[in-house]
Amino acid sequence: MNPTQIREHLQTFLSPSEIPSDQTAFLLDQRKRYTSENCLVVQPQSVENVQKIVRFCSEHRLPITPQGGNTGLVGGSVADGGIVLNLGKLNQIRHLNLADNTITVDAGCILHHIQTAATEAKRFFPLSLASEGSCQIGGNIACNAGGLNVLRYGTMRDLVVGLEVVLPNGEIVSHLHPLHKNTTAYELKHLFIGSEGTLGIITGATLKLFAPAATTETAWVGVDSIAQAVELLTQIRNQFAERLCSFELISAYALELSSQYSKLSQPVAAEWHVLIELTDSLPRDDLGDLLATYLYENGYENSVLAQSEQERQNLWNLRENISESQRVLGASIKHDIAVPIAQVADFVETCSADLQKNYPEMQLVVFGHLGDGSLHYNCFLPIVDNRVYDEYEDAVNSIVYQHVLANHGTIAAEHGIGSLKTHWLPHVRSADEIALMRVIKSQLDPHNLFNPNKLLPKNTA
Amino acid sequence: MNPTQIREHLQTFLSPSEIPSDQTAFLLDQRKRYTSENCLVVQPQSVENVQKIVRFCSEHRLPITPQGGNTGLVGGSVADGGIVLNLGKLNQIRHLNLADNTITVDAGCILHHIQTAATEAKRFFPLSLASEGSCQIGGNIACNAGGLNVLRYGTMRDLVVGLEVVLPNGEIVSHLHPLHKNTTAYELKHLFIGSEGTLGIITGATLKLFAPAATTETAWVGVDSIAQAVELLTQIRNQFAERLCSFELISAYALELSSQYSKLSQPVAAEWHVLIELTDSLPRDDLGDLLATYLYENGYENSVLAQSEQERQNLWNLRENISESQRVLGASIKHDIAVPIAQVADFVETCSADLQKNYPEMQLVVFGHLGDGSLHYNCFLPIVDNRVYDEYEDAVNSIVYQHVLANHGTIAAEHGIGSLKTHWLPHVRSADEIALMRVIKSQLDPHNLFNPNKLLPKNTA
Repeated sequence: MNPTQIREHLQTFLSPSEIPSDQTAFLLDQRKRYTSENCLVVQPQSVENVQKIVRFCSEHRLPITPQGGNTGLVGGSVADGGIVLNLGKLNQIRHLNLADNTITVDAGCILHHIQTAATEAKRFFPLSLASEGSCQIGGNIACNAGGLNVLRYGTMRDLVVGLEVVLPNGEIVSHLHPLHKNTTAYELKHLFIGSEGTLGIITGATLKLFAPAATTETAWVGVDSIAQAVELLTQIRNQFAERLCSFELISAYALELSSQYSKLSQPVAAEWHVLIELTDSLPRDDLGDLLATYLYENGYENSVLAQSEQERQNLWNLRENISESQRVLGASIKHDIAVPIAQVADFVETCSADLQKNYPEMQLVVFGHLGDGSLHYNCFLPIVDNRVYDEYEDAVNSIVYQHVLANHGTIAAEHGIGSLKTHWLPHVRSADEIALMRVIKSQLDPHNLFNPNKLLPKNTA
Repeated sequence: MNPTQIREHLQTFLSPSEIPSDQTAFLLDQRKRYTSENCLVVQPQSVENVQKIVRFCSEHRLPITPQGGNTGLVGGSVADGGIVLNLGKLNQIRHLNLADNTITVDAGCILHHIQTAATEAKRFFPLSLASEGSCQIGGNIACNAGGLNVLRYGTMRDLVVGLEVVLPNGEIVSHLHPLHKNTTAYELKHLFIGSEGTLGIITGATLKLFAPAATTETAWVGVDSIAQAVELLTQIRNQFAERLCSFELISAYALELSSQYSKLSQPVAAEWHVLIELTDSLPRDDLGDLLATYLYENGYENSVLAQSEQERQNLWNLRENISESQRVLGASIKHDIAVPIAQVADFVETCSADLQKNYPEMQLVVFGHLGDGSLHYNCFLPIVDNRVYDEYEDAVNSIVYQHVLANHGTIAAEHGIGSLKTHWLPHVRSADEIALMRVIKSQLDPHNLFNPNKLLPKNTA
């Protein structure tokens, strides 16, 4: 069935506003690498209409590609035929429950909208990432998003109390009432979280809320090595416990680039840099002193503490402007990787040596969330020709992933598998695991209609 | 194959010490309600031997019932034929990783052993429950144990970084290296957690550690109603955030019983009582003052703050002696239930009224972890005859569970389903969910050898 025919059918039960007149914005992915083909984009305004669309597609064996804010980086919501089911019009905050400290939302709510609703209720919703102004919570859940606050609050998976999911057969599984203890056979919620739209459509979620911060203290620390940064992390996390919100690692070279770009001086001179932020739910005048004393007494004198909100902002700008500042280096090959924190130093040392042996002209910009072991490990080559770039990309990825795997790490920390990395999955999950995944997929989606050809490698068995 | 024949086969590859000479301690369950029949208990001393036993059982189609400390309360590790595979001799701490703040352990480690190892490393492992001196971590994981620290640290599920599991085909799935961000297709770890030994045998686990407490403050607060206790919880959690470790609810009647039994005076007079404990990783002299001021300024003057460790211990004894003190009331029907915190007041009011209408002579002892919505809801009838007791039990359970379900709660908060509650599962999980569970079970365990007849209801389809 072609898009025109699909439209004719769907018009019988969808309102005109549920089929966007301008479809193009939904068809090209965020990185402009993938384009959806031969499909119709729909934006149902009710869970009932999601069910109707799903039943229609099931009956006619049409593929369905669920889509949130279309901010994914691995080609996870790109369609080839059938329907792109965008959740953007299912975007209401359903319920705030302060006794259970939860918020229940439609899957199409923009992340920033949820953060704001929490703040207005004097609560805090911790998921925070670069695309928070346009990404949708359903997509965040389907991809198990990470972002800035994983060290303290965990990934998206840790923030979900319950889900409402429309299954490929059109039935709903709903567990939106908050239960903080519940052990009733296999926990299926965690299958849907991170399933990238292959097992059903998340239409609603109940999420955890937290106490807002009343005190924030930010420090910049220069260290001699990654090993020393890991030692500092180990100590400071045990002293300040959950107050430790951010522990960011920045190479001297990354800081140099960002300092020039930001027109901000470098806080300290060192081989490696660490940005630390503590928050506390109580208003506490002494937290900064405690942190400064702690750093001084433990030998980290090469450090500064932000003395004002402006100084704090400057430190964060140095960290956040790295991405922009590195563009002067040319084409970059980026990696969404994580390794155990204890392995970060070994990984960076061995991988960087290997890359620079193979590509003497390569520039490495290394920074990331040391507190959760995930790194931005960006490899720059002075190449602008796209064809040559693609060739290099595969070769460089192979080297990087080989060192990631040797250090017991992951090839997909927080962006998921999508279209881009399915062939890498067998390197991180065993044959038994992938066989079980296929059975789960096949039970819920026997005709392989939900986001086909994503996540799982092609079945060559 | 009978136990003698099984023993003859296993002796060819197990050492004598891996087949306990006294088997009886492993055959009767904790509550003395279930006895294993016609089976051989084995205690392999290596993961390799677990694999060999599993392969042997698979080949000969012998059931395997995994067993930890045999402290379960729902008949989850009771066998009918085949092998009871007790993990008790696989009991080493494998690795402490302070950079990642994790500990990797054998599944047969006693929970208290892990707590101690964490403490010796100046860390804290938060899982804590009544049987911690004899329960094993593998069993805690297989049953998603809860216990005392769920409010702050979550259930067992939230404390597992990775698992090593021997599948029913004898293969190992191992993810023991700590990754704090990892999104590589379906998360299968959470299927094994809470699967009660039906999908494989957990042989090892990597667990989260936390900072130890340097400051502890404990208060006892009298309130007029459960609704007022929930209001206090809502406020205090938002003020003191993660410091809030315990928020226990105790009825006036439960306190009266415990006070008499403990020979300790009641801290305050009130209809309902709340025991609050805050901890902080920093040594802070002012935390008690902050708590006292907070209670006073918000109208909770009917309260006392423990001024010494002895006073603190007395408050906790009043809470912890309730279980013992209630025995004077006769036979009790207990429930492992939880409802959303916002529903606790409604549940207690409507359920208690219904029970007392049906059983005017019934005494109710109500207390529990209000902070996570789970209640000890104990119903006492002046009956000693076991036969009559069994009849009452089913009828009382039906009334209690009906009110639990009407309040969106769960019939199994932290003890699991086991043999006892399989027939209740369809009340809390949908037909689609149970169908998916059966497919998962059947893929991993096609001959239904792992803990058969537990967890899932009999398949009448």
